[in-house]
Amino acid sequence: MSVIYNRVALIGLGLIAGSMAHAMRRAGLAGEIVGTARSAETRAIAQEIGLCDRITETAAEAVEGADLVVLCVPVGAMGAVAAEIAPHLAAGATVTDVGSVKRDVIEQVGPHLPEGVHFIPAHPLAGTEHSGPRSGFAELFDNRYTLLTPGEGTDPAATARLRALWEGCGANVEEMDADHHDLVLAVTSHTPHLIAYTMVGVADDLRRVTDSEVIKYSAAGFRDFTRIAASDPTMWRDVFLTNKDATLEILGRFTEELFALQRAIRRGDGDHLHAYFTRTRAIRRGIIEAGQDTDAPNFGRTPSKREVPGA
Amino acid sequence: MSVIYNRVALIGLGLIAGSMAHAMRRAGLAGEIVGTARSAETRAIAQEIGLCDRITETAAEAVEGADLVVLCVPVGAMGAVAAEIAPHLAAGATVTDVGSVKRDVIEQVGPHLPEGVHFIPAHPLAGTEHSGPRSGFAELFDNRYTLLTPGEGTDPAATARLRALWEGCGANVEEMDADHHDLVLAVTSHTPHLIAYTMVGVADDLRRVTDSEVIKYSAAGFRDFTRIAASDPTMWRDVFLTNKDATLEILGRFTEELFALQRAIRRGDGDHLHAYFTRTRAIRRGIIEAGQDTDAPNFGRTPSKREVPGA
Repeated sequence: MSVIYNRVALIGLGLIAGSMAHAMRRAGLAGEIVGTARSAETRAIAQEIGLCDRITETAAEAVEGADLVVLCVPVGAMGAVAAEIAPHLAAGATVTDVGSVKRDVIEQVGPHLPEGVHFIPAHPLAGTEHSGPRSGFAELFDNRYTLLTPGEGTDPAATARLRALWEGCGANVEEMDADHHDLVLAVTSHTPHLIAYTMVGVADDLRRVTDSEVIKYSAAGFRDFTRIAASDPTMWRDVFLTNKDATLEILGRFTEELFALQRAIRRGDGDHLHAYFTRTRAIRRGIIEAGQDTDAPNFGRTPSKREVPGA
Repeated sequence: MSVIYNRVALIGLGLIAGSMAHAMRRAGLAGEIVGTARSAETRAIAQEIGLCDRITETAAEAVEGADLVVLCVPVGAMGAVAAEIAPHLAAGATVTDVGSVKRDVIEQVGPHLPEGVHFIPAHPLAGTEHSGPRSGFAELFDNRYTLLTPGEGTDPAATARLRALWEGCGANVEEMDADHHDLVLAVTSHTPHLIAYTMVGVADDLRRVTDSEVIKYSAAGFRDFTRIAASDPTMWRDVFLTNKDATLEILGRFTEELFALQRAIRRGDGDHLHAYFTRTRAIRRGIIEAGQDTDAPNFGRTPSKREVPGA
């Protein structure tokens, strides 16, 4: 593949920025990758592992002469970073981000950007429970979706160029309205994370079941919640504060359904429970058929029958 | 390892029974493995893949002369199976089960068993989202816990023998009071499963977000819920109907915590959210240190940085 941007500036050097650096290098998509982070320690690690071609101390320096600037900071910090870099942006540059919420980022970042700069919000739907400059890897975006939410009047050529970058990083790219994005993500990501955090917190609080019991006997479902609930606290705090309306709406639906199932348990209504549990299996099949998860039992933690000799 | 039981009868041939058959063969723990299942199709598959040494049409035939009988049917069916096999049990035989709930199984099975038969309820904390006679594999129990809940007055030698079988299958074995078991499992397994089923049901119901969107964009957390919610509906219906009190208690705690987090979101209380999300990370570390899950990002779905050449 050929170079799509001559100089890419990554502002913030966590899991997503690091994975973008690896993925852009894998496909030769960027002439030069410049990176910066607020923490001196993060910058030092990035320097040590050669994550970028060049590390700068400030975001203002990083964006100098960049034709693509990627904001990879927690959603709550986007506005401040945009204010800092705005005077230093090159004419014709594209500014994008990787935040998990889109409407709030648009409202925070948009007003700061000068005329002649293209602003194309983006969200790669990929991640792990790990964070920091050492956590990135080139394959993170392969066959995952990246959603772009360009506003009306955005230059189609600038959008096409950013799309090409993400496709070069391995992603499937789709465009979507920012508000719809925030609702979809409230369903597929934000509410599930809040629920997982809650369940892990309940287990931690319970006096009659010790932490050591919870840990030892976690294999039966709970450990999958703990993985989700091990994600970066700052990132998730900002997600819930900035996607408040959609999250609260989906939470309302969730508790309504949960109360209906709770009542079925209390009343001993086995038919209701069985029908509900049967219906949810179909969605799982859809996800596997769409290539968005493996069918290997237990996420491939344990060998499948086919791999067991003589089984 | 040497033979611990001369004839083991597996009643029901799903994931757990199948995995026991493989694990017992791996270590040579059983002289003969006899299996049966209610469904003719299941019996035919078990015959075809050679899951057991011998397949019988009825449970009554299967238990003839067996010194260990393992009830591997859904919890709701335990009482009926116990009534059927009781007249055919050999003197001195041990009857055990693999149900996810223990108090209810004891109440269903206990009254049917004749004098001189040892009844030692058990629960291997292992599983995948797959079910049926083809889904078992020998490694399922390796380094997982199996909990025994023998009643007072149970012969210690019989308990020690069953413990040796499970240890031979790779499990860590602990003993526990049946009621405490049911509470622990309500936390580590039953409530998490109900919550996952609920979240998947909500996503399926939502008109403004299509199923196809939910499926495509599931990588951000939701797909982990769909795996949990893909487990066998009959098994889970029975779990909730038979562990009603503990499940309802933990659900009450869960909704209380969820409402507190919901209020923090509504009020914009970022400190509360951040503190909560930080605390739950510690439990995850405990689980990894205890060897009950892998630290590989995303359950090892994607390669870690260390495995990426040149990364």
